[in-house]
This record gives sequence, structure tokens and C-alpha cells, in this order.
Amino acid sequence: MNNVQEKKSRSGPRRGLREEHRERLVACAEAAIAAGGLPALRARDLAACAGVSLGAIYNLVEDLDELTLLVGQRTMARLDAALGRVEGRGGSGDVGAQLIAWARAYAGFAAEHHELWRALFEFRMARPRDFPEWFAAAQTRVFERLEATLAPLVPALDAAQLRARARALFAAVHGIVALGIEGKLVALPAEAIDAELVAFVETYVAGLRKIGAAP
Amino acid sequence: MNNVQEKKSRSGPRRGLREEHRERLVACAEAAIAAGGLPALRARDLAACAGVSLGAIYNLVEDLDELTLLVGQRTMARLDAALGRVEGRGGSGDVGAQLIAWARAYAGFAAEHHELWRALFEFRMARPRDFPEWFAAAQTRVFERLEATLAPLVPALDAAQLRARARALFAAVHGIVALGIEGKLVALPAEAIDAELVAFVETYVAGLRKIGAAP
Repeated sequence: MNNVQEKKSRSGPRRGLREEHRERLVACAEAAIAAGGLPALRARDLAACAGVSLGAIYNLVEDLDELTLLVGQRTMARLDAALGRVEGRGGSGDVGAQLIAWARAYAGFAAEHHELWRALFEFRMARPRDFPEWFAAAQTRVFERLEATLAPLVPALDAAQLRARARALFAAVHGIVALGIEGKLVALPAEAIDAELVAFVETYVAGLRKIGAAP
Repeated sequence: MNNVQEKKSRSGPRRGLREEHRERLVACAEAAIAAGGLPALRARDLAACAGVSLGAIYNLVEDLDELTLLVGQRTMARLDAALGRVEGRGGSGDVGAQLIAWARAYAGFAAEHHELWRALFEFRMARPRDFPEWFAAAQTRVFERLEATLAPLVPALDAAQLRARARALFAAVHGIVALGIEGKLVALPAEAIDAELVAFVETYVAGLRKIGAAP
């Protein structure tokens, strides 16, 4: 029985206390990232915040990578909820209006939870490895919403193609939102972003309709 | 006369030596970022690489922010050259083919100069302030290419609208390219990116044509 299984098999009050400490640690990490981004994630500060010893952190999580992914999982669950709240806006028949509502909800989430959102994209694991299954599952839920909205416009695509197309659209919208918020290489005034998002989605949807209608 | 002007007014061999040191420092910073990303930019290592004392760095550049922007300027000049090499591909009349060539050149540059390209987008100044004019000018050159390619498809836009539209398209393409290379929240196999880029540009161009043709 390896160490992970051993931890999982713990039960009773001992396990409850560990879970409690672990949740407190994730909440501390989330607060640190929300305040100062990924550079604010320092083991010593986290230990103080969670009320555990420095060494005890590594009994609660494997490493800071896992801790960051746990925060990312929470961020994605919030994003998923924010995107879910606008689902069906604009009438179920109007895919263009639904996609605009989706893009605006995404932009709103990025503005509201700027550092947590940014951390999702900037995080690089100190020890690169595949994402754990629970993290991949949280990703998938976010994309499935967009796949469902997009599907009526691309009836000719199979499931794998639809998945890729929805992720590419997600990435395009993400790119436009990021450009307004970050103001790095790609600078555009934040107030222009909403108009550009709307123009972009309208153009993209018109293109899908045109290509779909072509012989 | 302030300190900056004083430095600028230096001339003769003294100035020549300073320029030489400064260029060596920028080359060292570029090599460091290319090898290990922004976290690899450490003053002590840079001083050793450039053969100057630690304190002398701050006679050559204002701070590490300025040094990073100088590297960014070089990266953008390379990007501009890479995008310029495919200009006119697909015939000057076929805007769709030109935009696909542009997007592929951008994806190729990002893959080839991954860390330098990534640094452009992840860099946050330790002392936030407006970008210097020479940096903004390097940005503008990259966008002007895309504006010129896009212009025939959006004849109704004025110059400011065209500028915003080109930057939004840049950001969308950037988003799709980044998703293949980074594999973070938005995961798509790298080999799917080319097909998605082509489908995306074709859809977007079809949409622009449809909207342009609408009464």
C-alpha cells in the first residue's frame, strides 16, 4: 500500500482533522493567490495562515503544485457556476445571443476574480506531470457548456471535432478578454473589449452559418 | 539636467563602452529568458554573464523591468520579421489565405521562440508604469501588418475601429496558439492546433464577408 492510499484509508476523527487542515490550507492558498497572484504562494506564509507547521504542509498536500491545482479546481468550479448562470439567455433558439452572453460572463468573471483567473493560465508545475483526474474533470465541465451551446451551429462535426472547436472558441474569447485586462503586448483599452467581444462572436457565428449553409 | 539626459549626452569612447556593455547585458537577459523564462532573470547571473559588477547593471539599465522590455522589443522585432516573411502569400487578392499564412507564421514563431514569446505576455513590471515609447512603437509595427491585411474585408470601419478589430483578431489567434503550446486550463493537443487555426480563420473571414455583404 503506497503512501497516498494510506492517507486515503485513514478514517474517523484523525481523518476529519486532516481534511479540516487541508481545507484551511487550500483556503489560505486561494486567498494568497487572489491577493498577490502565484508569486504570493509561499510555504512559510501558508503555514502561518493555516495554523500548521511548515513541515505539516507536506502531509496535507503532496507539494505546492498540488495545492495550486486544488485552488485551480475551485476557481474552475466558480467559473463553471458563473457561466451556468447565463445559460439560456437570449432565448434557446438564438445561439449568437447565447454565445455573446457566455463571452460576457467569461469577461465578467475574469475581471472579478482577476488573479485567480490569471493563475489558471500562468501556472507551471515545478515538477511537470499530467494533471490529476479531478483537475481534468473540472476543466471538462467548463468546456462541456460551450460545446452544448455551439453544437446546433456545427451539426456536421463529430464529438471529437466539436470538442476541439469549442476549445478553440474558448481560447479565442479568452485571448480577447486577456488583452483588455492585461495590457501587455496586445493592448486594447478595457472599455473597447465588450464591443470587440460582441463583434467577434457575431462575426464568428455569421461565418459558421455561412459555411454550414454552403453546398 | 537630469540623470537620464546626462547619460544620453555622453559621447565618444566612454559612451561607446557603455553601449557595448548594455547590449551585452540585453543579450545575456535574452539568453536567460530563452533558456528558463522570466524566473531565470537574476541580476547576479546577468552581471556574471555580461562581465560587469552587480551594481553596474543599474548604470546600464534603469531596472530589470527596463531590461525585460528591451528583450521584449527584440522579440517583437523578430516576430515582425517572421510575419513579414509570409506577407502576400496566397496572392494579394485572397485575404483568407493571407490571414491563414499569418496565423501559421505566428504559431510557428511561438513554437520556435517559446520562452521569449511567452515572456511578452507574462511579464508584469515590478514598478507598474506606462510602456516606454520605443516599446509601444515595436507593438504597433506588429499590429499594423494585420490591420493592412484585414482592411479590405472591413471597408466600413474607420481607422480606430480597424485598429481595435485587428488587435482582437490577433488576440483570438494568440489564444488558440497559446492553448496548444501551454496545455493549461485550455488543453488541446498541439497537433490539433493547425487544423483549428485554419478552421477558425476561415470561419471568421466567412463571417466578415457575410456581414459586409448584408444590406
